Amino acid sequence: MRVDGRKFDELRPIKVIRNFQKFAAGSVLIEFGETKVICSATIEDKVPAFLKNSKSGWVTSEYSLLPGSTSDRTARDSTQGKISGRSQEIQRMIGRALRAVVDLKALGEKTIWLDCDVIQADGGTRTAAVTGAWLALFDALLTLDRKNKKFPITDFLAAVSVGIVNEHVLLDLDYSEDSHASVDLNLVLTGQARIVEIQGTAELEPFDFSILQEILNMAQKGIFQLVRIQQDFAGEFFHNLLTVKGFNDSVPE
Amino acid sequence: MRVDGRKFDELRPIKVIRNFQKFAAGSVLIEFGETKVICSATIEDKVPAFLKNSKSGWVTSEYSLLPGSTSDRTARDSTQGKISGRSQEIQRMIGRALRAVVDLKALGEKTIWLDCDVIQADGGTRTAAVTGAWLALFDALLTLDRKNKKFPITDFLAAVSVGIVNEHVLLDLDYSEDSHASVDLNLVLTGQARIVEIQGTAELEPFDFSILQEILNMAQKGIFQLVRIQQDFAGEFFHNLLTVKGFNDSVPE
Amino acid sequence: MRVDGRKFDELRPIKVIRNFQKFAAGSVLIEFGETKVICSATIEDKVPAFLKNSKSGWVTSEYSLLPGSTSDRTARDSTQGKISGRSQEIQRMIGRALRAVVDLKALGEKTIWLDCDVIQADGGTRTAAVTGAWLALFDALLTLDRKNKKFPITDFLAAVSVGIVNEHVLLDLDYSEDSHASVDLNLVLTGQARIVEIQGTAELEPFDFSILQEILNMAQKGIFQLVRIQQDFAGEFFHNLLTVKGFNDSVPE
Amino acid sequence: MRVDGRKFDELRPIKVIRNFQKFAAGSVLIEFGETKVICSATIEDKVPAFLKNSKSGWVTSEYSLLPGSTSDRTARDSTQGKISGRSQEIQRMIGRALRAVVDLKALGEKTIWLDCDVIQADGGTRTAAVTGAWLALFDALLTLDRKNKKFPITDFLAAVSVGIVNEHVLLDLDYSEDSHASVDLNLVLTGQARIVEIQGTAELEPFDFSILQEILNMAQKGIFQLVRIQQDFAGEFFHNLLTVKGFNDSVPE
Amino acid sequence: MRVDGRKFDELRPIKVIRNFQKFAAGSVLIEFGETKVICSATIEDKVPAFLKNSKSGWVTSEYSLLPGSTSDRTARDSTQGKISGRSQEIQRMIGRALRAVVDLKALGEKTIWLDCDVIQADGGTRTAAVTGAWLALFDALLTLDRKNKKFPITDFLAAVSVGIVNEHVLLDLDYSEDSHASVDLNLVLTGQARIVEIQGTAELEPFDFSILQEILNMAQKGIFQLVRIQQDFAGEFFHNLLTVKGFNDSVPE
Amino acid sequence: MRVDGRKFDELRPIKVIRNFQKFAAGSVLIEFGETKVICSATIEDKVPAFLKNSKSGWVTSEYSLLPGSTSDRTARDSTQGKISGRSQEIQRMIGRALRAVVDLKALGEKTIWLDCDVIQADGGTRTAAVTGAWLALFDALLTLDRKNKKFPITDFLAAVSVGIVNEHVLLDLDYSEDSHASVDLNLVLTGQARIVEIQGTAELEPFDFSILQEILNMAQKGIFQLVRIQQDFAGEFFHNLLTVKGFNDSVPE
Repeated sequence: MRVDGRKFDELRPIKVIRNFQKFAAGSVLIEFGETKVICSATIEDKVPAFLKNSKSGWVTSEYSLLPGSTSDRTARDSTQGKISGRSQEIQRMIGRALRAVVDLKALGEKTIWLDCDVIQADGGTRTAAVTGAWLALFDALLTLDRKNKKFPITDFLAAVSVGIVNEHVLLDLDYSEDSHASVDLNLVLTGQARIVEIQGTAELEPFDFSILQEILNMAQKGIFQLVRIQQDFAGEFFHNLLTVKGFNDSVPE
Repeated sequence: MRVDGRKFDELRPIKVIRNFQKFAAGSVLIEFGETKVICSATIEDKVPAFLKNSKSGWVTSEYSLLPGSTSDRTARDSTQGKISGRSQEIQRMIGRALRAVVDLKALGEKTIWLDCDVIQADGGTRTAAVTGAWLALFDALLTLDRKNKKFPITDFLAAVSVGIVNEHVLLDLDYSEDSHASVDLNLVLTGQARIVEIQGTAELEPFDFSILQEILNMAQKGIFQLVRIQQDFAGEFFHNLLTVKGFNDSVPE
Repeated sequence: MRVDGRKFDELRPIKVIRNFQKFAAGSVLIEFGETKVICSATIEDKVPAFLKNSKSGWVTSEYSLLPGSTSDRTARDSTQGKISGRSQEIQRMIGRALRAVVDLKALGEKTIWLDCDVIQADGGTRTAAVTGAWLALFDALLTLDRKNKKFPITDFLAAVSVGIVNEHVLLDLDYSEDSHASVDLNLVLTGQARIVEIQGTAELEPFDFSILQEILNMAQKGIFQLVRIQQDFAGEFFHNLLTVKGFNDSVPE
Repeated sequence: MRVDGRKFDELRPIKVIRNFQKFAAGSVLIEFGETKVICSATIEDKVPAFLKNSKSGWVTSEYSLLPGSTSDRTARDSTQGKISGRSQEIQRMIGRALRAVVDLKALGEKTIWLDCDVIQADGGTRTAAVTGAWLALFDALLTLDRKNKKFPITDFLAAVSVGIVNEHVLLDLDYSEDSHASVDLNLVLTGQARIVEIQGTAELEPFDFSILQEILNMAQKGIFQLVRIQQDFAGEFFHNLLTVKGFNDSVPE
Repeated sequence: MRVDGRKFDELRPIKVIRNFQKFAAGSVLIEFGETKVICSATIEDKVPAFLKNSKSGWVTSEYSLLPGSTSDRTARDSTQGKISGRSQEIQRMIGRALRAVVDLKALGEKTIWLDCDVIQADGGTRTAAVTGAWLALFDALLTLDRKNKKFPITDFLAAVSVGIVNEHVLLDLDYSEDSHASVDLNLVLTGQARIVEIQGTAELEPFDFSILQEILNMAQKGIFQLVRIQQDFAGEFFHNLLTVKGFNDSVPE
Repeated sequence: MRVDGRKFDELRPIKVIRNFQKFAAGSVLIEFGETKVICSATIEDKVPAFLKNSKSGWVTSEYSLLPGSTSDRTARDSTQGKISGRSQEIQRMIGRALRAVVDLKALGEKTIWLDCDVIQADGGTRTAAVTGAWLALFDALLTLDRKNKKFPITDFLAAVSVGIVNEHVLLDLDYSEDSHASVDLNLVLTGQARIVEIQGTAELEPFDFSILQEILNMAQKGIFQLVRIQQDFAGEFFHNLLTVKGFNDSVPE
């Protein structure tokens, strides 16, 4: 049993507040337990220079911790005059991952900004951000005129972390677990259980391929539940377009 | 009557969610109608260089708009590599105003950071920020050990904007009003109706001293209600220490 | 009596050197006692992006202290890699104030840069800057071809500070006074005694509305003298166009 | 067969020039085919603030492309005034990976800087950088006085990329392959075939878990050869201390 | 004859206003014709890190153009977020040159800041800056307590430019000449006619060694007059300490 | 005799590796003894704003030290967020010097970037950079289509340093000599022995004009040998176009 009473393969309670920010095209507050992230999607009618006249759109992301999101105040990137390496790494990952499930040609020459601002940080902020960014993106794209046009999202997309703490493989680490983890792996999958991003790091202690297998199995269980939540969020109209399948046997239907 | 049905001298609905961020020493979400600001207070056990060995503490503030807080996405200061002039101006004002009601000697060699992050911007963000920052500060200071020590807050502190729109003097402008205002004045008062900061600007049309008088009278009405909310927030224990008085006759008890 | 022998409601000696910089369209050196500011106005044949094709011009300002202007050397903003919060706040105020007396449509799609560089800082640099910037602006606009065109300046504009030092209300504080002031208020008025900007701050000790009234009365006296100087500077040709009136009874004609 | 005649599971020719920079404590030029990276290690007798008095050392990395390393000139980070997101991401990974095979306590309060400067970029620069950084680090640590002290390196460390191009799984992509890859995965292993870092991305096309397995098998083959090269570089004296084992059956001994 | 009526080997009128800024330890306004530079010297009671505990002082310089100093407004370095390459080059030269005539050991662990701010730029700003910086430095050092101490200045120091315009060798170019010069050389000499800095550039047209000789001869004539002005400025008390001699025959006594 | 056995007027061994970077239009590794610099030239099909529609091209340079090029690691400019003053000064000189031997009209509206990255710094990096940049530029310009077009290079260009160490005039100082030099002069000459740039500095000890003469004579000897190397590099085809002549008598044919 874990500190908060969860089983090894149990997610924290997931909560989504839709339309969290009234003026953004799409906005949710997503909570993985005590981790809370505002994800907003805004649409800009232009594309970066390298896409001009390509008929293709773009999806990009920015990620930041609010100063009061952590016990020790996190200094603002703006005060430092530059974005921290950690924030850069995370926001590049979020943008890359979401682009894998957007048909950029169908989007047309628009840029979608996905802003993920962590208001409370208790571990797993990047996985909550990816999962929530999909929801904000979905709502933003609903605001576009869709007459005779293909909906630009091609699949669900969600992420979890799995770590090894005291030689146990644990799903969806909170901060107290994360800070003792010898291995930390983040997996991003589509609703078809296909891999979009895998990032695993063993700063303390390298690990064997057999452990990797266990980690990947457990991650699938968590992501299966998250894409189910996305399916409910999208609603019945999209049930034919966006499906969930292909997760491994250990995942309970 | 105003667009949203308010009377000229009526505040928008004020709402406060206490302990909004679990890990900050003090944190509220304050809402002035659709304007929503997260105010958090964190305590650092050191002071800026110019106060070293002075036995005096410091209160400082940082203010920022989340990108999704506005219809047109607001670019992050961190991406620009510097804080915008507007943000600088506002955060300097918030820090200055709060210092006027803190006994820095009683605080001792600590720095209180007041972070005001706007998650939805519908006009009056700086006045909501000042009013909410006082609440976050209050809660943060409650976490300090107070054995035989003076509580470092000396008074309430709240702010409202008053503007002139189509020659009407209006209290607590929302964004649609603010963008047509010929004059915009922000007033910060204590619970004793004493002036801490007055900032009035007439970019479109200079105004007469008689109008200034009207504006100041109306501002008092709004602030009176805000410091009453702060009084309730502080609770009975502080009723002797922190009082509300001195507001002008036009203010209803 | 004050340290330098002035009466409470007496300005420091005001001095203006016209055409201080030969290559700028307009340039003055303005002195409020030992405070000396170079104000220059240059004209650029384009406008910021948000005004393109609006047929409207723009007036903006930059403010800086020369390193040798203060006893302790002031570090350059350029060496810090960013503009100090104080400079930002002041230059935003100068630009905003001057725009209130310029008919931007009459100016046409041009930008006027008002650069205020303090070569000696003895208190009141921002009020000297506003007052001098008007003079530089006036001279710069004279260089424009005016055939059948409306002169774009609509009124005079000057500023003074008033402060409370040892419970006395004092006009036009010098640095030794300013550093002990419990309240510091800057007022910007037009030649019609109308308010363009009011900025008052009580970091040490909040103050009553009755004191505000005294401060405002005294400020009018100072500004009246400054706009008279501007009237002389503009010369007879402009006496019909730009007038001085509306100042309160306490102001001696 | 591939464009350059390699088999699917064949590395490009690997070349190492030892002591490439005379003044650095350790320095190699490492070549993976036409990809050429200068890796240097320098030792500083202090540690970052968070490690002061911890008796622990630190290993950190900086990565950059020389402007002339690519056909289209790569703008310098210094001219942009900030490090590009891509460089940040890569240098964080290099530092993290190397720390996994360094006993920071045995190192003592020193910082090792691993600078990886790409002089020719033909794909796989980050994997060449990790592999070369280990060599430079090894040589730098040899210069430390080792009387009765444990050698701080605990294992070999090498990296390769594997990608999917036209549905083939290819080892060690060059730039022409990388730019058409639908999946790109970088794997960092120790000499014991244990995982230190796994980073896989499918921007174009998500991929199945079965493909991941193929990729990981092929990556092992490449890394096996690289750690053999490191073993030769280290020399016989270290053969007991640093061994190579545990690679999968498909890897030829 | 030149545009302004000067002979080829004639300086522009040189003018110095002493104590130009009241609060700086030393300050002059120096004019070479229409080129006007404020040079101030301030003393700081510490030295850069590399001189700590060396018993040696330091002299450093910062140089900047005021925006209104040129017909086309010069953008501020602070707004760009960095110092322009040209300013950097000039300020490094000024600091280096002045250090050549200061006995840094005699100065002790102090830093002298020489700030050169150009208020009007008509060619030759760097030579006016060097010459004026010496004067400001001299006055600043007079403010130090000198009981039984060696005066830290060892020699005079002045600079002029010489250029080739339409195949004529001209002394002390103004802007109209400088912008057509095929060669531009700045020479910094001591009062003993010894070389401290020589910087010659032929962007348009390389030049022969024989021309260099002519240029150097003419430069000596100009510098001779400038160090005479410095000698008068220093006053009789320093006539034994600081002498002028060694200039070539073509220089009139 | 000097530390490394050289005569006073002897260059260090000069070595050039052509085509050092495969993807750059021109690239050499140039060595002056242990000083090693990668010089690359890349061609961009646009010009800076001030040359738009001028039919004229541009040549510019960037210079940097690799961190491992020095015994004490050199911090990256990018990590500092700005280019060091020394780098700025050097890269401006390199660009300026090369422009003196390029016919910018013949080049047409293109920009040539000359990147000089020092991989090993043992004194004289800027002179090696100038000499090597010419070689890289030459090779880059060979890649341009030259049908009926004038070759844009008009002359050779090389540089050496000469210094005074212990009162001896020494050619081509290495770092151990440079760090004790009382005078350091860099001279850039064309193949016609004409001066393009002269930069001499005497931070420690001003020097006489007679010494300058000795220095210039010795510098010619060194540059003569360098332009001979450039002549060989250019090859026979260019022997009529680019010649070497005019060096003084002391230079051995």
